[in-house]
Amino acid sequence: MSEGRISMVPFPKERVIGGRAMVDDLMTQYGSPTLHPLSKESLFIVAPGLLAGTNAPSSGRLSVGGKSPLTGGIKEANVGGTPGHRLGRLGIKAIMVEGKASEWQVLKIDSKGACLEKAGEVVGMTNYAACERLRKRYGEDVGILIVGPAGEMKLVNSTVAATDPEGRPSRHAARGGVGAIMVAKGLKAIVIDDKGLAMRKAVDQDAFKEAVKTAISAIQEIPYVPVFHEFGTAASLDNDQAMGSLPTKNHRLGSFDRYQNINAKKMVELCTARGGSMGHGCMPACVTRCSPIFHDSSGQFLTAALEYETLGALGSNLGIDDMDAIAFLDRQCDELGLDTIELGCTIGILNDAGLFDFGDVERAKELVKEIAEGTPLGRILGSGVAVTARVFGIDRVPAVKGQAIPMHAGRSIKGWGVTYATSPQGADHTAGVVVDEQLSPIGQVERSRGSQIAFAALDAAGLCMFTFLTGSPDVIAPMINALYGVKWTVDDYLEMGKKMLHQERAFNIAAGIGPEADGLPDWMRREPFPPTNAVFDVSQDEIAKMFSF
Amino acid sequence: MSEGRISMVPFPKERVIGGRAMVDDLMTQYGSPTLHPLSKESLFIVAPGLLAGTNAPSSGRLSVGGKSPLTGGIKEANVGGTPGHRLGRLGIKAIMVEGKASEWQVLKIDSKGACLEKAGEVVGMTNYAACERLRKRYGEDVGILIVGPAGEMKLVNSTVAATDPEGRPSRHAARGGVGAIMVAKGLKAIVIDDKGLAMRKAVDQDAFKEAVKTAISAIQEIPYVPVFHEFGTAASLDNDQAMGSLPTKNHRLGSFDRYQNINAKKMVELCTARGGSMGHGCMPACVTRCSPIFHDSSGQFLTAALEYETLGALGSNLGIDDMDAIAFLDRQCDELGLDTIELGCTIGILNDAGLFDFGDVERAKELVKEIAEGTPLGRILGSGVAVTARVFGIDRVPAVKGQAIPMHAGRSIKGWGVTYATSPQGADHTAGVVVDEQLSPIGQVERSRGSQIAFAALDAAGLCMFTFLTGSPDVIAPMINALYGVKWTVDDYLEMGKKMLHQERAFNIAAGIGPEADGLPDWMRREPFPPTNAVFDVSQDEIAKMFSF
Repeated sequence: MSEGRISMVPFPKERVIGGRAMVDDLMTQYGSPTLHPLSKESLFIVAPGLLAGTNAPSSGRLSVGGKSPLTGGIKEANVGGTPGHRLGRLGIKAIMVEGKASEWQVLKIDSKGACLEKAGEVVGMTNYAACERLRKRYGEDVGILIVGPAGEMKLVNSTVAATDPEGRPSRHAARGGVGAIMVAKGLKAIVIDDKGLAMRKAVDQDAFKEAVKTAISAIQEIPYVPVFHEFGTAASLDNDQAMGSLPTKNHRLGSFDRYQNINAKKMVELCTARGGSMGHGCMPACVTRCSPIFHDSSGQFLTAALEYETLGALGSNLGIDDMDAIAFLDRQCDELGLDTIELGCTIGILNDAGLFDFGDVERAKELVKEIAEGTPLGRILGSGVAVTARVFGIDRVPAVKGQAIPMHAGRSIKGWGVTYATSPQGADHTAGVVVDEQLSPIGQVERSRGSQIAFAALDAAGLCMFTFLTGSPDVIAPMINALYGVKWTVDDYLEMGKKMLHQERAFNIAAGIGPEADGLPDWMRREPFPPTNAVFDVSQDEIAKMFSF
Repeated sequence: MSEGRISMVPFPKERVIGGRAMVDDLMTQYGSPTLHPLSKESLFIVAPGLLAGTNAPSSGRLSVGGKSPLTGGIKEANVGGTPGHRLGRLGIKAIMVEGKASEWQVLKIDSKGACLEKAGEVVGMTNYAACERLRKRYGEDVGILIVGPAGEMKLVNSTVAATDPEGRPSRHAARGGVGAIMVAKGLKAIVIDDKGLAMRKAVDQDAFKEAVKTAISAIQEIPYVPVFHEFGTAASLDNDQAMGSLPTKNHRLGSFDRYQNINAKKMVELCTARGGSMGHGCMPACVTRCSPIFHDSSGQFLTAALEYETLGALGSNLGIDDMDAIAFLDRQCDELGLDTIELGCTIGILNDAGLFDFGDVERAKELVKEIAEGTPLGRILGSGVAVTARVFGIDRVPAVKGQAIPMHAGRSIKGWGVTYATSPQGADHTAGVVVDEQLSPIGQVERSRGSQIAFAALDAAGLCMFTFLTGSPDVIAPMINALYGVKWTVDDYLEMGKKMLHQERAFNIAAGIGPEADGLPDWMRREPFPPTNAVFDVSQDEIAKMFSF
């Protein structure tokens, strides 16, 4: 970026690698763990998954990564929308950005090549308006990755937004401050134009078609898939509420007395009554299609992809039971490029400092406005929960490795707690789902380990966890084999996930984040979590065994 | 503190331990490395050195510690003034505070015992006024440890001030946010009344008298002692300027073109012309007496103990060559309870964000006012250089383990650089001085190791580094032997220092700060430091050997 130079480097055909595995590999090869994440020498990486650009089910997830300015460790944030598939069709394996442009740039990629252009008037714009402008400039049918105003301020709670099939920046590589990494390169947006390109051809077309068919049938038998399709991920809210695992009022409670105002049923009711809809797909070729389109009370589009994590973080966790308010805040986050999990936890802890009352919708809106305006208070909040806690002297901090703890409570869903405690990605909602035998501390490290491996592999394949929640290596490996002409066993496929975790771990250690940093905050071991009154009691000795594989 | 209960616990006579060694030992025994430093369960510790309360030269240094909210690791901040000697005379080995009072308290200690009293009207006061009030309440001749407004706000740049012989809170256990730890207990001040108590009696009085005499003679032969006496620690400014090691303009240069306006000669000139003085002792029985009393241009007292680190941090590092302005800022730091090193580095980096111009005295004053007023910007700045960098997206951060890098440049004084890189205390100015063979990377780990061991032992003995800059174990061990009736060899004495470093290291590892966190910021390895143009080039492999002893 410093010299505005682009090199297109052919990628060896025999190397079957993509998505998060590609981020891990490039960071291991070319990234320096000791560099400041926002220095001009640091790397910003975008990599589509192995199955991107095909009609494999729910296969267009994209990996965005580098060294996180939030955790200080390696980061891969995963996002849906159309850019993943488009990059796949263009045959792009990865975009690696280094240096820093002196003026804001747009990276334009199409079938003829790539070039840098001045970003111009989209700088300073919020994401919806900026995407509209970029579509006017580059054509309606382009995919866009973009940083919003939060990223422009280099706030470590800043996302890279991806456009959905309607061109809206409603999807976010949200975690770990990847927006700030992109901004540190002087890059405002990446515009991907795959006009006229067909689906990728598999090495063995028949086998691929067969493997995709098998995968789709397998998926159609999974009970939760139609549930997510009908109710969106909001279905998890009822589920976690029932388990006493819905973080409420700054992670103090596991159930929210007014949950019915923000649950799946309410979502369906509001979406259908106002001209919105359920069952929207964020990527082409998605079989689950779990996203709602949410309209406001006057029937105008308000936001898309109102997810469980957002309903929890900006809803129950703030004591807010007003779905319109949550949808409004979600839209603001989409506009500014803010991670809703990080933001919800950040506003939540302000209650401890007397700066936020649970349920105070107007105050929550005001606080987001502070971020939008870049006031000192806004900058504090936009710097995430750990920094906000430090600035206001708050000692009860829901974060691991500096990243806010998501909305499936780790005290009562202990396997998930182990994932938060140990993932090289910090407390992450997609790094390794573990929902079985939730209240017992026994065996959770093994469960989390298996899940972290499976989910790492999913992130490499570019597959969505809402379709492949069980990991499903047996239906995934055959698709990879047919597409690339290789003969991976299920074990080979999972081996990829293992290697990724070890690479990420090694990067973190070299970055100064050793095994000692693994664990949930101490207070989660002492403070009972009603209604289960569970505390996190998986021993540190057990946790220390996580990476013994 | 939660129940307002005080236990006086007899300390085994045969245990010869004090100061920083006591902090290390109590934290190892009773402290939890995984607790949040500001949680009510965390510990706040005060411990006078082994030789406190005697007439051993420069022997009244006091250790204040706990788990640092700034570094996340163990912390001992060392301070002069009278409280150390007074606690020694009272026979107090340590004060360990746990829990949290619901209302601000003063801990009053005298020869009859200890009690907690409501802090009352001193809450919210700046330090000078609060100490005056407390002396009115408890008697003119008491020693006071107190937290200022910065501490009350739980800012992690907050000190515990100690009163000097005149009762002024001009001495500070400044580093690592020990003020916030004290505040997290609900403790505003500790008042120490040793009225009527004589010096401590040695087990072997004659031998002690002899050992003290030997130590004083040895000190009187050290060339730098009369230099510090005559010029104060400002003498270091000329020295570092000459070596190209005076951090200037946010650590970008090693010399300051206008250094003569803030150097030792200028200090002596201003102090003598305005009715101030040089050669003031901060502790009874100090032989070096290196402190200036600084008056303003109208001849009024402005500040005491205007030290080298402050002249660098708030002077050259900010491009400020106005000694009156530096003295004013120093006084503000004393009033609010702010570490001048942390503050100077914090304001310095604002230049990178366009928020501070070098040399802009009025802006510097304004920024300190923001802290005093507790505005969001003030809270950011009061949270130290690492947080400020994060909030403003600054990638060139002069900090190690979250603590600001002091004013002897580690790139050109490489042994000192190794100390900053490896000390369990974070980048610390008193953790291990190494000035010989400054520009070569060879042998610096060994030199730093020897110095860190010697300085740890000094901090346990309660001796001042400005008198015992060479460590001087041969004259120190005999004083300890005669006082306690033990037979330590020089090796036994140094063994204490080694054990301390290992304990501190172990605590940090358990707290999540592993060996991987040792190192100077990456940019110090790449950015040449004029005029020597040195970069820090002690290899990480070498640095990794630091604790192999």
